[in-house]
Amino acid sequence: MNHLPPDTLLAALNWRYAVKQFDPTRKIPAADWAALEQSLVLTPSSLGLQPWKFLIVTDPAVRARLRPAAWNQSQVTDCSHFVVFAVRQDLGADHVERYFARLAEVRQATPESLGSFRQMVTTNLDRARAEARLDRWQSHQLYIALGQFMAGAALLGIDTCPMEGFEPKKFDEFLALEGTGYASVVACAAGYRAAADPYARTPKVRFKPEDVIVRI
Amino acid sequence: MNHLPPDTLLAALNWRYAVKQFDPTRKIPAADWAALEQSLVLTPSSLGLQPWKFLIVTDPAVRARLRPAAWNQSQVTDCSHFVVFAVRQDLGADHVERYFARLAEVRQATPESLGSFRQMVTTNLDRARAEARLDRWQSHQLYIALGQFMAGAALLGIDTCPMEGFEPKKFDEFLALEGTGYASVVACAAGYRAAADPYARTPKVRFKPEDVIVRI
Repeated sequence: MNHLPPDTLLAALNWRYAVKQFDPTRKIPAADWAALEQSLVLTPSSLGLQPWKFLIVTDPAVRARLRPAAWNQSQVTDCSHFVVFAVRQDLGADHVERYFARLAEVRQATPESLGSFRQMVTTNLDRARAEARLDRWQSHQLYIALGQFMAGAALLGIDTCPMEGFEPKKFDEFLALEGTGYASVVACAAGYRAAADPYARTPKVRFKPEDVIVRI
Repeated sequence: MNHLPPDTLLAALNWRYAVKQFDPTRKIPAADWAALEQSLVLTPSSLGLQPWKFLIVTDPAVRARLRPAAWNQSQVTDCSHFVVFAVRQDLGADHVERYFARLAEVRQATPESLGSFRQMVTTNLDRARAEARLDRWQSHQLYIALGQFMAGAALLGIDTCPMEGFEPKKFDEFLALEGTGYASVVACAAGYRAAADPYARTPKVRFKPEDVIVRI
């Protein structure tokens, strides 16, 4: 595999910013979008459980409903692809069953050979539920997907804007998530910055490396 | 900026896996490591607050202490660079002050011109604190950093293993985080897979795209 030069990685991460104004006329080409969707599918997660659905919203009518529930931010309607990251709430036996069926299928393993791993997964989930940190643990994983998605997009020359500022209950209603066990956690608009977006030219604000990096 | 071909991104994400056995003799070259550290610094976060410290643990003595607090997993001691992601707990006025000082410095802005943004930030933090979701909100951001770090590493040809299985209180003690307001959330070992690691050759287990991607 060819390795990326470190400067190329940093150029993409420095180019990236939270887009305020997308160019509504530009759409992400199919091959680039297919790769970004696949990058979502490939996201690593704790114990491999993949406690998520990724909702790719392109229907203008649905996006028009979502926008007022997101402080009327224009990114919702003006981007090319609007992604909502939804977490499996109260993740339990049905999800574990589905995961182990997939594991057995991909690795051509017998249920017996997976027994001790399965017991470990169940024990960990039960303990997290008892300690009231199950949903928090799972929602963390969604942000791995978000981080990988935004970094991958930047490398492909695609702009993004992560969005936490929305009313999750309304999103769940408009996206037909109610009653499915999944709930909206965070969203990300993807597409191309408008030429007029002034934020594209403001310097990125980050603490100095010595204020966030601690060497031990 | 040159854009990465989509296939190159996917090749790196498919090459990546959670390493079980690192080659303890191989160290990440300085230029690659500097880029990965900078990718941590550049991570986007909600409202730009960067509620984090990234502890880069290379001291063998410290790593030997951490390992038993992480289920004795060999990655802690055998990787090249061991990163602990620590979140700012109960994020409050001192952090906001520090952020706005940095914002004013980088953008050459007056405190007055930042007043309404600052009020918005404070209002949001106060509401999250009142609703007992402040720490959860901030810890989510750490996983954006983790996702961007692992994706960036894979593109540079560097292996990783994300780790949640450790005793946070012991990590905080051994890393001198107690009393600083920061707490360990997640860790990531980085380096190079051992030739003998059998997990490098097992197929990646992911749900089928149609089971996690929903098009609307």
